[in-house]
Amino acid sequence: MMRSVYVAGTGSTTFGKHSGTTIEALAVDASAQAIVDSGIERSRIGAVYLGNFVSGPLNGKEVLAGLVAEQLGLQGIPCTKVEGACASGGIALRHACLMVASGVCDAVLVVGVEKMTHASTAEVTTALNCAMDNESDGMVGLTFPGLFGLAWQAHAQKYGTTREDIAAVVIKNKAHGLKNPLAQMGADLTLEQICGSAMIADPLQLFDCCPASDGAAAVVVCTKELLTQPTKPRIRVMASVQTSGSARIAHHPDLTSFDATVLAAQQAYQQSGLQPADIDLVELHDCFSIAEIIDSEDLGLVPRGEGGRWAAQGQTGMQGDIVINPSGGLLAKGHPVGATGVGQVVEVVLQLRGMHTNQVANAAVGMTHNLGGTGVACTVHILGRDA
Amino acid sequence: MMRSVYVAGTGSTTFGKHSGTTIEALAVDASAQAIVDSGIERSRIGAVYLGNFVSGPLNGKEVLAGLVAEQLGLQGIPCTKVEGACASGGIALRHACLMVASGVCDAVLVVGVEKMTHASTAEVTTALNCAMDNESDGMVGLTFPGLFGLAWQAHAQKYGTTREDIAAVVIKNKAHGLKNPLAQMGADLTLEQICGSAMIADPLQLFDCCPASDGAAAVVVCTKELLTQPTKPRIRVMASVQTSGSARIAHHPDLTSFDATVLAAQQAYQQSGLQPADIDLVELHDCFSIAEIIDSEDLGLVPRGEGGRWAAQGQTGMQGDIVINPSGGLLAKGHPVGATGVGQVVEVVLQLRGMHTNQVANAAVGMTHNLGGTGVACTVHILGRDA
Repeated sequence: MMRSVYVAGTGSTTFGKHSGTTIEALAVDASAQAIVDSGIERSRIGAVYLGNFVSGPLNGKEVLAGLVAEQLGLQGIPCTKVEGACASGGIALRHACLMVASGVCDAVLVVGVEKMTHASTAEVTTALNCAMDNESDGMVGLTFPGLFGLAWQAHAQKYGTTREDIAAVVIKNKAHGLKNPLAQMGADLTLEQICGSAMIADPLQLFDCCPASDGAAAVVVCTKELLTQPTKPRIRVMASVQTSGSARIAHHPDLTSFDATVLAAQQAYQQSGLQPADIDLVELHDCFSIAEIIDSEDLGLVPRGEGGRWAAQGQTGMQGDIVINPSGGLLAKGHPVGATGVGQVVEVVLQLRGMHTNQVANAAVGMTHNLGGTGVACTVHILGRDA
Repeated sequence: MMRSVYVAGTGSTTFGKHSGTTIEALAVDASAQAIVDSGIERSRIGAVYLGNFVSGPLNGKEVLAGLVAEQLGLQGIPCTKVEGACASGGIALRHACLMVASGVCDAVLVVGVEKMTHASTAEVTTALNCAMDNESDGMVGLTFPGLFGLAWQAHAQKYGTTREDIAAVVIKNKAHGLKNPLAQMGADLTLEQICGSAMIADPLQLFDCCPASDGAAAVVVCTKELLTQPTKPRIRVMASVQTSGSARIAHHPDLTSFDATVLAAQQAYQQSGLQPADIDLVELHDCFSIAEIIDSEDLGLVPRGEGGRWAAQGQTGMQGDIVINPSGGLLAKGHPVGATGVGQVVEVVLQLRGMHTNQVANAAVGMTHNLGGTGVACTVHILGRDA
């Protein structure tokens, strides 16, 4: 019999450029905020899960889970780094939830972190390509902008999605980012600016791509009994799902959809007993503009093939049928890889508490979606405000 | 209520130099063996945990858990890489055990893997130092041979442990390695050869150090109901423990002991209801000869301070009070870092099945001990043959 799991506290650094500090310090900063926000004594924390993707190649550091726990004064408890490319943060959260649900721990600290901006573009590209099947796709020169450029072309061909449709995602998320103090690259952009930006991987242009980022985000999850703060609404984890899909592009029969997302969404709706119409907002994995369109369809939040048109018609904006990425998403908030999946949960918790700087009216149920590599790993979480 | 967990199947590549193959291929090889040995249908496997330390820096690859699962035909299930330096393999096993115990999965594949021998000594040293607190210890020039050289000096000063005592560990483990077809560097060594070998980090000499290795090891764990093979003895996981300790040398009050090991052993005895005297054999983390002595004391298997003398007197050999590292240990079997903790379990299972090439007579209960970095992460498992 699994126990209910709650998010008791959140913390985050800003996403952006953090020079003159270490990756451990970023993680400690976000973690300490989350612990304080939770009101839970450190001695009650039974485990640490740290999501990180490429601290080895880019920072020359591993065992970050243990290093960070020690600096937080958490001693003796299991400390584990988990990795699943860009889904590392979501995977960390899922494991923390499982530890609480199964009774192994009463409270668990989850922190995601990455530090990338000190490295050259070539170093970052090489590091990010660690998320690919380098024996096949990497070998022939594919990169992640290349993959999502192909996905865009497939979506355009199959569903008639246009440059203007996709620009609507960029305009929306960049505008959301302006309202989020944690965001790295909010902006007030016009269609002309987007269409005039540098070509990266045809048809993807500069503003269609998320930036490289430094940052950390953290949450403390716990049992209902450990929630100490009657003044804050109780935020329950209604679904916590992790799936996998093919790493190799040739094994994706259809580049306009990621199997791992479709499966994760199905399982998340089943676990929570909810339907897409019950979701008030979603923080989803818009590493590129086209990814938001594909993800929104894979999650069942937008009809298949309609993602572009929904974006263009404002149905995914703040007043829309489903609010997508009110934080600004990866495009505007930034994408410190290992932190992203945890940062999404921080954003949703702030929304469900009614405390967000870009608040979705009456937000009661929120979803997060974190996708790794070429769809090789995926997590979906649904969080709800307890009545 | 937690369920009992069993090891249903094991697989392993040889440990050593594997040129002309990929890290994924090594992991797939060991995993496929373990699945076949388990007799469990692939469709029953509910998750994959992969232990790996430095595939990013040394192989330019991450998301190995997903890549390996895909090549094994395991689709859609959660696939997670876990990392805790040299304890990565043990941490992978613990998570697999928890998934089965808690009812999340009925069967889980665990695989540990590392590929290091293609890299230069400088590259390997830099990669291994990712397991250190590089902001303090690494900064001042400490390496792992340096750390264990200091530990040796502390143990010698405090307990009178001699070069001859420590050489006895090397002679024993190298001889055990000769009997293990999976081992990389078994040898018939004399005290003179050991004392005449190159000085690495005073007083550590060449034969006191484990080699760099390539290799993979895998096990399938499952519920009692899923055990399909009545002809094989049932091997139950009686304890599965993960702890943490300080990463920073200055925070270790006593270099002759690792807190994380002491704590893990205490918890493992408590979980299993067993005492040190119940353990027939142990595969422990002898990354350096002195480490075996310290570990054997920390695990409570040898009286504090007596590890050297017990080794010299043969009390840790095949006919001894406690048989230590009948596989040859890291010193002789090799140390493909992420694979080591899983490989230890493969060895113990073969012993408990009575099928080992260096069989411990009447082995009924075995322990494994996997230590990461400067004692920052530790796992201890106790396995027993069901009556």
